[in-house]
Amino acid sequence: MSDEYPVPDMADVQLVTVLRAVADPVRLQIVRVLADGEPHAKGADEWGFELQKSALSYHFKTLREAGITRTIVTGRTHAIQLRRTELEGRFPGLVDVLLQA
Amino acid sequence: MSDEYPVPDMADVQLVTVLRAVADPVRLQIVRVLADGEPHAKGADEWGFELQKSALSYHFKTLREAGITRTIVTGRTHAIQLRRTELEGRFPGLVDVLLQA
Repeated sequence: MSDEYPVPDMADVQLVTVLRAVADPVRLQIVRVLADGEPHAKGADEWGFELQKSALSYHFKTLREAGITRTIVTGRTHAIQLRRTELEGRFPGLVDVLLQA
Repeated sequence: MSDEYPVPDMADVQLVTVLRAVADPVRLQIVRVLADGEPHAKGADEWGFELQKSALSYHFKTLREAGITRTIVTGRTHAIQLRRTELEGRFPGLVDVLLQA
Protein backbone atom coordinates (compact mmCIF):
# COMPACT_ATOMS: atom_id res chain seq x y z
CA MET A 1 0.00 0.00 0.00
CA SER A 2 1.15 3.53 -0.57
CA ASP A 3 -0.22 7.02 -0.29
CA GLU A 4 -0.43 7.05 -4.04
CA TYR A 5 -2.78 4.08 -4.07
CA PRO A 6 -4.98 4.29 -0.99
CA VAL A 7 -7.42 1.53 -0.15
CA PRO A 8 -10.50 1.73 2.07
CA ASP A 9 -10.55 0.00 5.42
CA MET A 10 -12.25 -3.32 4.84
CA ALA A 11 -14.58 -2.71 7.78
CA ASP A 12 -15.98 0.29 5.90
CA VAL A 13 -16.50 -1.56 2.62
CA GLN A 14 -20.14 -2.12 1.74
CA LEU A 15 -21.32 -5.19 -0.13
CA VAL A 16 -23.16 -3.16 -2.73
CA THR A 17 -19.92 -1.31 -3.54
CA VAL A 18 -18.07 -4.57 -4.08
CA LEU A 19 -20.89 -5.95 -6.21
CA ARG A 20 -20.91 -2.84 -8.37
CA ALA A 21 -17.17 -3.15 -8.91
CA VAL A 22 -17.26 -6.79 -9.97
CA ALA A 23 -20.45 -6.49 -12.04
CA ASP A 24 -18.37 -6.01 -15.17
CA PRO A 25 -16.89 -8.71 -17.42
CA VAL A 26 -13.40 -7.20 -17.51
CA ARG A 27 -13.17 -6.61 -13.76
CA LEU A 28 -14.60 -10.04 -13.00
CA GLN A 29 -11.90 -11.55 -15.20
CA ILE A 30 -9.22 -9.51 -13.42
CA VAL A 31 -10.44 -10.86 -10.08
CA ARG A 32 -10.20 -14.39 -11.44
CA VAL A 33 -6.61 -13.83 -12.57
CA LEU A 34 -5.85 -12.48 -9.09
CA ALA A 35 -7.53 -15.36 -7.32
CA ASP A 36 -4.21 -17.08 -6.67
CA GLY A 37 -3.54 -14.35 -4.11
CA GLU A 38 -0.23 -13.36 -5.66
CA PRO A 39 0.73 -9.88 -6.86
CA HIS A 40 0.41 -9.55 -10.63
CA ALA A 41 2.26 -6.87 -12.56
CA LYS A 42 -0.14 -4.35 -14.03
CA GLY A 43 1.75 -4.27 -17.29
CA ALA A 44 1.86 -8.02 -17.81
CA ASP A 45 0.33 -9.66 -20.86
CA GLU A 46 -1.60 -12.12 -18.77
CA TRP A 47 -4.73 -10.00 -18.44
CA GLY A 48 -5.72 -11.12 -21.87
CA PHE A 49 -7.81 -8.14 -22.79
CA GLU A 50 -7.51 -6.09 -25.91
CA LEU A 51 -7.75 -2.93 -23.90
CA GLN A 52 -5.90 0.35 -23.99
CA LYS A 53 -3.59 0.76 -21.03
CA SER A 54 -5.75 3.65 -19.82
CA ALA A 55 -8.86 1.49 -19.85
CA LEU A 56 -7.13 -1.26 -17.91
CA SER A 57 -5.88 1.34 -15.41
CA TYR A 58 -9.44 2.52 -14.91
CA HIS A 59 -10.56 -1.01 -14.08
CA PHE A 60 -7.66 -1.52 -11.66
CA LYS A 61 -8.55 1.75 -9.94
CA THR A 62 -12.21 0.81 -9.66
CA LEU A 63 -11.31 -2.50 -8.00
CA ARG A 64 -8.88 -0.84 -5.61
CA GLU A 65 -11.26 1.93 -4.57
CA ALA A 66 -14.00 -0.63 -3.97
CA GLY A 67 -11.74 -2.43 -1.50
CA ILE A 68 -11.12 -5.52 -3.60
CA THR A 69 -7.45 -5.09 -4.47
CA ARG A 70 -4.31 -3.33 -3.35
CA THR A 71 -1.50 -1.91 -5.45
CA ILE A 72 2.07 -2.79 -4.54
CA VAL A 73 4.78 -0.46 -5.76
CA THR A 74 8.30 -1.89 -5.94
CA GLY A 75 10.64 0.54 -7.61
CA ARG A 76 9.14 1.08 -11.04
CA THR A 77 7.02 -2.04 -10.96
CA HIS A 78 3.38 -1.74 -10.03
CA ALA A 79 1.55 -4.90 -9.12
CA ILE A 80 -2.02 -5.58 -8.14
CA GLN A 81 -3.13 -8.13 -5.56
CA LEU A 82 -6.49 -9.38 -4.37
CA ARG A 83 -7.21 -8.54 -0.71
CA ARG A 84 -8.39 -12.11 -0.47
CA THR A 85 -8.07 -12.82 3.26
CA GLU A 86 -9.65 -9.51 4.19
CA LEU A 87 -12.48 -10.00 1.70
CA GLU A 88 -13.11 -13.49 3.00
CA GLY A 89 -13.29 -12.13 6.53
CA ARG A 90 -15.71 -9.37 5.62
CA PHE A 91 -17.88 -11.25 3.09
CA PRO A 92 -17.48 -15.01 3.64
CA GLY A 93 -18.03 -16.96 0.45
CA LEU A 94 -17.89 -13.95 -1.87
CA VAL A 95 -14.56 -14.72 -3.52
CA ASP A 96 -15.57 -18.32 -4.19
CA VAL A 97 -18.79 -17.14 -5.81
CA LEU A 98 -16.87 -14.77 -8.07
CA LEU A 99 -14.56 -17.54 -9.24
CA GLN A 100 -17.45 -19.62 -10.57
CA ALA A 101 -17.68 -19.87 -14.33
CA MET B 1 -44.53 -17.83 -14.62
CA SER B 2 -46.54 -16.31 -17.43
CA ASP B 3 -45.98 -15.07 -20.92
CA GLU B 4 -46.40 -11.59 -19.56
CA TYR B 5 -43.46 -12.00 -17.20
CA PRO B 6 -40.90 -14.23 -18.91
CA VAL B 7 -37.79 -15.35 -17.10
CA PRO B 8 -34.53 -16.59 -18.61
CA ASP B 9 -33.53 -20.22 -18.31
CA MET B 10 -31.22 -20.41 -15.32
CA ALA B 11 -28.66 -22.33 -17.38
CA ASP B 12 -28.33 -19.29 -19.62
CA VAL B 13 -27.93 -16.79 -16.77
CA GLN B 14 -24.44 -15.32 -16.51
CA LEU B 15 -22.88 -14.38 -13.18
CA VAL B 16 -22.01 -10.89 -14.35
CA THR B 17 -25.67 -10.28 -15.23
CA VAL B 18 -26.78 -11.33 -11.76
CA LEU B 19 -24.09 -9.20 -10.14
CA ARG B 20 -25.13 -6.18 -12.16
CA ALA B 21 -28.74 -6.64 -11.08
CA VAL B 22 -27.99 -6.88 -7.38
CA ALA B 23 -25.32 -4.15 -7.37
CA ASP B 24 -27.93 -1.63 -6.30
CA PRO B 25 -29.07 -0.83 -2.76
CA VAL B 26 -32.79 -1.06 -3.55
CA ARG B 27 -32.55 -4.32 -5.45
CA LEU B 28 -30.26 -5.84 -2.85
CA GLN B 29 -32.84 -4.98 -0.21
CA ILE B 30 -35.60 -6.55 -2.31
CA VAL B 31 -33.58 -9.76 -2.55
CA ARG B 32 -33.20 -9.76 1.23
CA VAL B 33 -36.95 -9.39 1.73
CA LEU B 34 -37.44 -12.28 -0.69
CA ALA B 35 -34.87 -14.48 0.99
CA ASP B 36 -37.55 -16.43 2.84
CA GLY B 37 -38.42 -18.00 -0.51
CA GLU B 38 -42.07 -17.02 -0.28
CA PRO B 39 -44.01 -14.97 -2.85
CA HIS B 40 -44.37 -11.34 -1.78
CA ALA B 41 -47.07 -9.11 -3.19
CA LYS B 42 -45.59 -6.37 -5.32
CA GLY B 43 -47.94 -3.81 -3.85
CA ALA B 44 -47.24 -4.62 -0.21
CA ASP B 45 -45.89 -2.04 2.19
CA GLU B 46 -43.12 -4.32 3.33
CA TRP B 47 -40.57 -3.21 0.77
CA GLY B 48 -39.89 -0.22 2.92
CA PHE B 49 -38.75 2.11 0.21
CA GLU B 50 -40.03 5.57 -0.42
CA LEU B 51 -40.21 4.89 -4.10
CA GLN B 52 -42.76 5.64 -6.77
CA LYS B 53 -44.61 2.55 -7.91
CA SER B 54 -43.03 2.91 -11.33
CA ALA B 55 -39.53 2.94 -9.85
CA LEU B 56 -40.26 -0.15 -7.80
CA SER B 57 -41.67 -1.86 -10.91
CA TYR B 58 -38.45 -1.08 -12.74
CA HIS B 59 -36.41 -2.75 -10.02
CA PHE B 60 -38.69 -5.82 -10.01
CA LYS B 61 -38.33 -6.08 -13.78
CA THR B 62 -34.55 -5.79 -13.60
CA LEU B 63 -34.37 -8.63 -11.10
CA ARG B 64 -36.70 -10.83 -13.12
CA GLU B 65 -34.91 -10.28 -16.41
CA ALA B 66 -31.59 -11.05 -14.74
CA GLY B 67 -32.94 -14.43 -13.68
CA ILE B 68 -33.13 -13.70 -9.97
CA THR B 69 -36.90 -13.63 -9.45
CA ARG B 70 -40.14 -14.80 -10.97
CA THR B 71 -43.51 -13.06 -11.02
CA ILE B 72 -46.57 -15.02 -9.97
CA VAL B 73 -49.93 -13.74 -11.20
CA THR B 74 -52.98 -14.88 -9.26
CA GLY B 75 -56.06 -13.05 -10.47
CA ARG B 76 -55.29 -9.41 -9.93
CA THR B 77 -52.52 -10.05 -7.43
CA HIS B 78 -48.95 -9.95 -8.67
CA ALA B 79 -46.31 -11.42 -6.41
CA ILE B 80 -42.56 -11.71 -6.74
CA GLN B 81 -40.51 -14.67 -5.56
CA LEU B 82 -36.80 -15.39 -5.42
CA ARG B 83 -35.70 -18.28 -7.68
CA ARG B 84 -33.72 -19.43 -4.71
CA THR B 85 -33.27 -23.14 -5.41
CA GLU B 86 -32.37 -22.51 -9.03
CA LEU B 87 -29.95 -19.73 -8.10
CA GLU B 88 -28.32 -21.95 -5.50
CA GLY B 89 -27.89 -24.67 -8.10
CA ARG B 90 -26.37 -22.34 -10.65
CA PHE B 91 -24.24 -20.16 -8.33
CA PRO B 92 -23.66 -22.02 -5.05
CA GLY B 93 -23.20 -19.65 -2.15
CA LEU B 94 -24.40 -16.55 -4.00
CA VAL B 95 -27.68 -16.07 -2.15
CA ASP B 96 -25.97 -16.45 1.23
CA VAL B 97 -23.43 -13.82 0.25
CA LEU B 98 -26.18 -11.40 -0.75
CA LEU B 99 -27.92 -11.81 2.59
CA GLN B 100 -24.90 -10.61 4.53
CA ALA B 101 -25.20 -7.21 6.11
